[in-house]
Amino acid sequence: MALDSAPGIADVRNAAQRLAGLAVRTPLLESQALNERFGGRVLFKPEVLQHTGSFKFRGAYNKISGLSEEERARGIVAFSSGNHAQGVAASAAMFGARAVIAMPADAPQAKVGNVRRMGAEVVSFDRVRDKREDVVKPYLERGMVLVPPFDDPAIIAGQGTVGLELMQQAVELGVRLDTVVVPCGGGGLIGGVSIAVKDASPATAIWGAEPEYFDDTRRSLEAGKRVANEPGHDSSCDALMTSEPGLITFEINRRNLAGIVAVSEKAVAAAMRDAMAHLKLVVEPGGSVALAALFSGRIDLKGKCLAVVLSGGNVDFDVYSRMVAGA
Amino acid sequence: MALDSAPGIADVRNAAQRLAGLAVRTPLLESQALNERFGGRVLFKPEVLQHTGSFKFRGAYNKISGLSEEERARGIVAFSSGNHAQGVAASAAMFGARAVIAMPADAPQAKVGNVRRMGAEVVSFDRVRDKREDVVKPYLERGMVLVPPFDDPAIIAGQGTVGLELMQQAVELGVRLDTVVVPCGGGGLIGGVSIAVKDASPATAIWGAEPEYFDDTRRSLEAGKRVANEPGHDSSCDALMTSEPGLITFEINRRNLAGIVAVSEKAVAAAMRDAMAHLKLVVEPGGSVALAALFSGRIDLKGKCLAVVLSGGNVDFDVYSRMVAGA
Repeated sequence: MALDSAPGIADVRNAAQRLAGLAVRTPLLESQALNERFGGRVLFKPEVLQHTGSFKFRGAYNKISGLSEEERARGIVAFSSGNHAQGVAASAAMFGARAVIAMPADAPQAKVGNVRRMGAEVVSFDRVRDKREDVVKPYLERGMVLVPPFDDPAIIAGQGTVGLELMQQAVELGVRLDTVVVPCGGGGLIGGVSIAVKDASPATAIWGAEPEYFDDTRRSLEAGKRVANEPGHDSSCDALMTSEPGLITFEINRRNLAGIVAVSEKAVAAAMRDAMAHLKLVVEPGGSVALAALFSGRIDLKGKCLAVVLSGGNVDFDVYSRMVAGA
Repeated sequence: MALDSAPGIADVRNAAQRLAGLAVRTPLLESQALNERFGGRVLFKPEVLQHTGSFKFRGAYNKISGLSEEERARGIVAFSSGNHAQGVAASAAMFGARAVIAMPADAPQAKVGNVRRMGAEVVSFDRVRDKREDVVKPYLERGMVLVPPFDDPAIIAGQGTVGLELMQQAVELGVRLDTVVVPCGGGGLIGGVSIAVKDASPATAIWGAEPEYFDDTRRSLEAGKRVANEPGHDSSCDALMTSEPGLITFEINRRNLAGIVAVSEKAVAAAMRDAMAHLKLVVEPGGSVALAALFSGRIDLKGKCLAVVLSGGNVDFDVYSRMVAGA
């Protein structure tokens, strides 16, 4: 795999300049109660407060702003369960570009509704039966430009601005981060964040978190090559149900990650409840896996200073209520 | 009423210096969907993200930090349904001072639990049957110092730092605020905020929001004198169930407020749901009344730029779930 297609810190810095004043510089939050429970200091980076309710706006906007006017005039296509879709729809609307988004039929209604509200066209597909590539093919054949969800240098660089802000905010707070924990789907967020974190602080350990049965990056890191998830499983973490790591993201993550923790549905629900009770944040299942990973005992917390990314908050109320009540 | 006991902008600025690095500088958040719905620009100041989950930490810390060491050594007493209690408990703990908090027996369990966790002693009383003054009397007779919930210059100045930050953040964003909307219980928050807002921008209108049946400040402004609420009513807004305006707070608010909107339980639930869906914030009933006030039609929104304070997020899950589901 050609490593020269991987973005570097300069690309992340450029993305930050493009996003200045458009993306929310999400604050670092902490809870005394959670610090006491974990026996360390845990700083949360709540991308639920980001424009469109997840970090995905950062990568999508960075990608679309880097296209030529001619490309944007042809229109934009994406496939996504919803967070990338919203990031693309919002970014396309800011450039006045047409956007067509292929979304699985079982995507959260909150996500589908938001994409439509932002003026994008939604094409529905069956997550199991249809190949998402086939769904978008007719639009690509007409010349529309694909904005991929994660395996793209500009997308990864955009998501990396989460890490850039995090390291700046840690300096402002006067803390040294021992560990950063980040949700992992296709690996774009954690890959981008790892570039910024390792640039600023090579000694900081970067841990990923994946839902159980969708721990393709964990198993790929163990195998030393990209392996796919077994079909036939389901998860509440719709945002993280990718089938296998990206080519570029895996090359970055195999270099930069300390490891990945696979978390249970039960741990996800408990993390959502903790985020509600102690941080007053609505976090979607996939957005809470990095907090859930702290319950595993796999990551050293005692006396440490950690940052945890809460990556998205786009969840339907009935799912939210059921999971938090059951936690 | 002696107006010279009212705090001024210098007191608010001093409070901000005391709170620097201890209180969260809560960000300004906005939602494209809500902006579109309201036809204006609405910036939210989410004090749910504040230390202890509400703005109350600001006033309590400012008050306690202004006591002498000798006074703090005697211990601190407060009565509160929970948010002031948590602010006092956290602040007392930071100074190593003993704290005794009288809380109504029907206070949210989340609030009672947090107060205990922070090391304060909780004395329970019946909201209807007992006089809260009588409950704390034995402690005051032993020399402990009362930290009142709102009618105190240092408390009002501390809460005013919400307004100071708000006006600074508006300048940073390059916006001029036409209107600021703030929840009103005893009037400490809105009074303090009004001092900072009127200092920076005399033309900005300041609106309060109260729950129906607990609109004592609204009726007091109309009557030109302090009037109490009729007994016998209940509200989900436990944080705002004061019986009448404070002496100092009413003098400030009668000078500075454009008016007060009384909001229904239904509007409160809808506001809580909107905060969840569009801002990803868990807002307690009393914390959401200023957003609820925007639904009333009483406040001019079209083409305007508003700031809305979401004052607290300490709500038990069953209440939250029931209200948001019913909205």
